[in-house]
Amino acid sequence: MDLKSYLKQRQLLINKALGRYLPSTARFPGAIHKAMRYSVLGEGKRIRPILALAACEAVGGKVSSVLPAACALEIIHAYSLVHDDLPAMDDDDFRRGKPSCHKKFGEAIGVLTGDALLTFSFELLASGSHNGASSVHLQVIREIAKAIGTDGMIGGQVVDVDAARRGGVPPATMEYINTRKTGALISASVRIGALLGGVSPKAYQSIRHYGDRIGLVFQFVDDLLDKDGAVRLYGVEAVRRKANRLTESAIAALAPFGKKAEPLRALAQFILTRDF
Amino acid sequence: MDLKSYLKQRQLLINKALGRYLPSTARFPGAIHKAMRYSVLGEGKRIRPILALAACEAVGGKVSSVLPAACALEIIHAYSLVHDDLPAMDDDDFRRGKPSCHKKFGEAIGVLTGDALLTFSFELLASGSHNGASSVHLQVIREIAKAIGTDGMIGGQVVDVDAARRGGVPPATMEYINTRKTGALISASVRIGALLGGVSPKAYQSIRHYGDRIGLVFQFVDDLLDKDGAVRLYGVEAVRRKANRLTESAIAALAPFGKKAEPLRALAQFILTRDF
Repeated sequence: MDLKSYLKQRQLLINKALGRYLPSTARFPGAIHKAMRYSVLGEGKRIRPILALAACEAVGGKVSSVLPAACALEIIHAYSLVHDDLPAMDDDDFRRGKPSCHKKFGEAIGVLTGDALLTFSFELLASGSHNGASSVHLQVIREIAKAIGTDGMIGGQVVDVDAARRGGVPPATMEYINTRKTGALISASVRIGALLGGVSPKAYQSIRHYGDRIGLVFQFVDDLLDKDGAVRLYGVEAVRRKANRLTESAIAALAPFGKKAEPLRALAQFILTRDF
Repeated sequence: MDLKSYLKQRQLLINKALGRYLPSTARFPGAIHKAMRYSVLGEGKRIRPILALAACEAVGGKVSSVLPAACALEIIHAYSLVHDDLPAMDDDDFRRGKPSCHKKFGEAIGVLTGDALLTFSFELLASGSHNGASSVHLQVIREIAKAIGTDGMIGGQVVDVDAARRGGVPPATMEYINTRKTGALISASVRIGALLGGVSPKAYQSIRHYGDRIGLVFQFVDDLLDKDGAVRLYGVEAVRRKANRLTESAIAALAPFGKKAEPLRALAQFILTRDF
């Protein structure tokens, strides 16, 4: 398959949907809606929503039934970046080539924009239930809340903040950061796409296996690109070998889905070989 | 009814439930769970969860079916206080007689604790659906997300931050801040209790009327105590008259519920006459 044009087409679809779902700047109070749109729209690979859409289609579901949740994943990702960039956190003045949210709108709006994006993502996740069973939507909300909570993304950040202060961590702690900080939301994106696509319990196990593996690969590649984390601990070669093995295992788990999982296979390779 | 002992008994019930629901400090990473418990447990009137429980009982529902959501309301309230206290926002060193979260644990943990509390509240709202219809739980999540989003609590804060910077606002803007900043979550607490108590569509209109009115009264009394907001604009006497009239109208809306609404009536009087 032509991954490049597939990605481009999906990014367009997701960007259009994000623009439609996010509150308009014409709505009062405009300042916060402007900051929300600034932080979500524009540049962005949209990996999380693309994974959710692909997982939904792999299990035979329709794109329309997962699009709001897929956009919620991207909005959650944006919230985490806005708060990460704050002076009290990583203190980054730039994000994707533009001034970071708090640099552009001030620190108070930076805090409130992250809060507003996180809140809005749950509003989005709880709407559109006409497309599926309410109990599945509740399960999706639980899965996401766990993936970004203190045993997921926030947990990874807390331990990472602490590790940076100490200047080094034991391998077990590194493993914890690896699976939680970025991997948890990536894996959850895959699971959520499958759940909203109406996956069977048996197929869900396979999809889950794929999601867990590529979540880890995503974080390992981050570390390879930053020469940080696992790379400092195990060295470039060992991390590359681990990432290769995990990608093979992820792709092997997709066998039951046949041709419908072609995008998920290509995405696994893409995540392994990306250079951004 | 003896409101004082009613409040005390309900506070005990809610504090016990909060202690049970919130992640234990023994769970890794302990630092964030410690900061979460520090920010929620201890002092606190628990007005929002008490209103939710009372509204549930007024419509004939059971306390057990609303307890997790009631605790989520208190956790959301705590998140808003933790982020409000940050240096970029109100810059408060103390909260309820103790060092504020960021003073105690550092600013990075302050940001992350607010995020973690907000995230956890949605996890709590999405669980326990065995006690009721999933579609009602989804409706509750939507109601809460709206009440604390950019057309609710966050919207009120954004406009308030802007008003403080300008040093004055027109009456319409004051009205906006009044209904959103504190009132929206108070009103939502009442609606949510009724929804989870299995309220009929007709009774819901009455309960909603009550909730909207006491949400406004709550904010007016805040302004009377702080000599701020509406008081600066209309004067003490006019605000007191408005608050009295709204309380009467709120209580009048409870007529269809008879004796079961006794706590809601007493709570309306309590909110009007409180001195904290």
